[in-house]
Amino acid sequence: MRRRLKLAEKRRAAVELALKQLGKIICEQIENREFPWIMLQSRSTDNIVYDPELRQYVLGDRVIRRHSRNIRHIRPFTQLIWTAWFARELLKLRKTSTLREVYYSARGLRDIEFKSQDESDEIITDLETALNMPRESFNIYPEERSAIFGDLTIEYTVPGYEGKRLNLTEHPDGMMIGPALSTAEIVETSADKVLVIEKGAMFTRLIEEKAHKRFNAILIHTAGQAPRATRTLIKRLNEEHGLPVYLFTDGDPWGMHIAMVIISGSANAAHLRGLATPDAKWIGVWATDIIRYKLPTENLTDKDVKRLKELKRDPRYQGELWQREIDTFLEIGQKAELEAFSRYGLTYIVDRYLPDKLEEAGA
Amino acid sequence: MRRRLKLAEKRRAAVELALKQLGKIICEQIENREFPWIMLQSRSTDNIVYDPELRQYVLGDRVIRRHSRNIRHIRPFTQLIWTAWFARELLKLRKTSTLREVYYSARGLRDIEFKSQDESDEIITDLETALNMPRESFNIYPEERSAIFGDLTIEYTVPGYEGKRLNLTEHPDGMMIGPALSTAEIVETSADKVLVIEKGAMFTRLIEEKAHKRFNAILIHTAGQAPRATRTLIKRLNEEHGLPVYLFTDGDPWGMHIAMVIISGSANAAHLRGLATPDAKWIGVWATDIIRYKLPTENLTDKDVKRLKELKRDPRYQGELWQREIDTFLEIGQKAELEAFSRYGLTYIVDRYLPDKLEEAGA
Repeated sequence: MRRRLKLAEKRRAAVELALKQLGKIICEQIENREFPWIMLQSRSTDNIVYDPELRQYVLGDRVIRRHSRNIRHIRPFTQLIWTAWFARELLKLRKTSTLREVYYSARGLRDIEFKSQDESDEIITDLETALNMPRESFNIYPEERSAIFGDLTIEYTVPGYEGKRLNLTEHPDGMMIGPALSTAEIVETSADKVLVIEKGAMFTRLIEEKAHKRFNAILIHTAGQAPRATRTLIKRLNEEHGLPVYLFTDGDPWGMHIAMVIISGSANAAHLRGLATPDAKWIGVWATDIIRYKLPTENLTDKDVKRLKELKRDPRYQGELWQREIDTFLEIGQKAELEAFSRYGLTYIVDRYLPDKLEEAGA
Repeated sequence: MRRRLKLAEKRRAAVELALKQLGKIICEQIENREFPWIMLQSRSTDNIVYDPELRQYVLGDRVIRRHSRNIRHIRPFTQLIWTAWFARELLKLRKTSTLREVYYSARGLRDIEFKSQDESDEIITDLETALNMPRESFNIYPEERSAIFGDLTIEYTVPGYEGKRLNLTEHPDGMMIGPALSTAEIVETSADKVLVIEKGAMFTRLIEEKAHKRFNAILIHTAGQAPRATRTLIKRLNEEHGLPVYLFTDGDPWGMHIAMVIISGSANAAHLRGLATPDAKWIGVWATDIIRYKLPTENLTDKDVKRLKELKRDPRYQGELWQREIDTFLEIGQKAELEAFSRYGLTYIVDRYLPDKLEEAGA
């Protein structure tokens, strides 16, 4: 327990140090009678490149300098410094906050102004870029909540719960992945894989069918696009604990992309590392599964087709599997949701489909 | 423990009995060489009335007869019988399902057809009307998940967890309210009130600020409009355990209506009892709070204004408080979100606002 709390402390200390250093640079510049400035990697689209070695999007070499001497820069410069101060306060007080609360917190101070939440969100992303750390590391979380279930024991590091342990099978509706679970240490697990599911209904179905026991798996529900704290957790289970990760989504371009963002990251998080799990495998629902399992389908909409054509050109989708599945979707003009398996009875998915697919994926 | 499991068994037995009786009526009609038919209360808008005594919407006296001799009725009649069969299967197998899964389950059977999920949802509502029981009682749940936190010990009744207990402070991100928690028995609580919050961010804030201890409250997060299982839970805490309920929403017509639906039910659940908590109190954010606490605001949109004018005429909104607040919203032309309190610091809401409001509400 000691060691684990220490790890959490260490992580927090690293973020505090990064924030302090940022502040120190500014102070030194002022003491040297310079107009303070900071350097940031550029996040403009022409500086976002796919790194085939890292297997994720990263920022290129272009940097921008935000300079308080430049009248157009003073506003975002000041906002960034305030946001860094706010982040440090959060860490010091051991509190968490949300994107929206940050926006309103600024509105309380007469001299800091954000025109809209978009503007404050943007500055928070600047701070992530400056520190090379996701906002969750300085305690700013989004609204969405995903969930987890399975034989995994965690140990909390949040105030009031330090050192307390919980086994994630305790509550059969699943455990919400919020700030407390995101910052918890992983103590032990008997599972030998992670099964990630896009939808709450299927997550509940799998718990009910005891899929965690039958497949010896930890179940994670992403609630649509996986929040970043959830992607970090998936990565930790994969890298620190050596558990292979299988992704199970709706059979349509949107489901496919939920899987891809877990595997390869997204363009708008190109400034961050530690979120992608390149070895995670998308096991379905594939377009070829729709044919093979004769699933009930819906027709692809124009929007679906347009999205598939975009994905076909996307550097992350150049692998054989992805190209084949995109082509098949376009060929059959159909898509299928996870719930479509109910046509064969509620348990078909755990009795037949998942065993097939996991075996084929080498699980 | 014995007694509690028995209660859960009893509830299930009551639903099974209702389904059996429905089936029996049909069988007897057939044996009597009649075309089978069933009688349902009409749910058309002119048969939905506000009952000031019950303080909720109810269905009026008009009934409709769905008759298998009528060619236009055969389709919904057959669908209803199939849905009743499916519900009984769920109960027998002790499985839960979702609206969407029901739709796809039907698609697996060649002779039952739903054109879209709207159609199957409608038939499920018919079955609710026929049985006078919400679909959750025959194990059909929606997708949304809300959450709960506080010193409340529950005892599960779902398979594999029978008799197991959990205290709802175990996981500081909050416990998801899914099928397992919805069907759990309430064992004991040290709390003396329930504080219901519309938004996840504020729920997390309140946990972090130990609002459950400071106000001796159970915290419930509705995630927008409260799912019906959550409304049932709120009602149970209020009626079976005598805990007063305080509702805390965004300061706009939509937040106000989230509170109202918990208090008085909704028109589209007029065929059901047991969901409304007429004694629950909306404590904020009021329009008058916006003025009193000088909250940061947004302008009301045309849609907001239109909605406020609708609510002003709504029979549920005829009380003095509601009329005053609607008028004030319209007068100031402003609205405020829960997060707006961050302007005074993250803890203002628990240090100042909530104590004020709870005291005024007589808590």
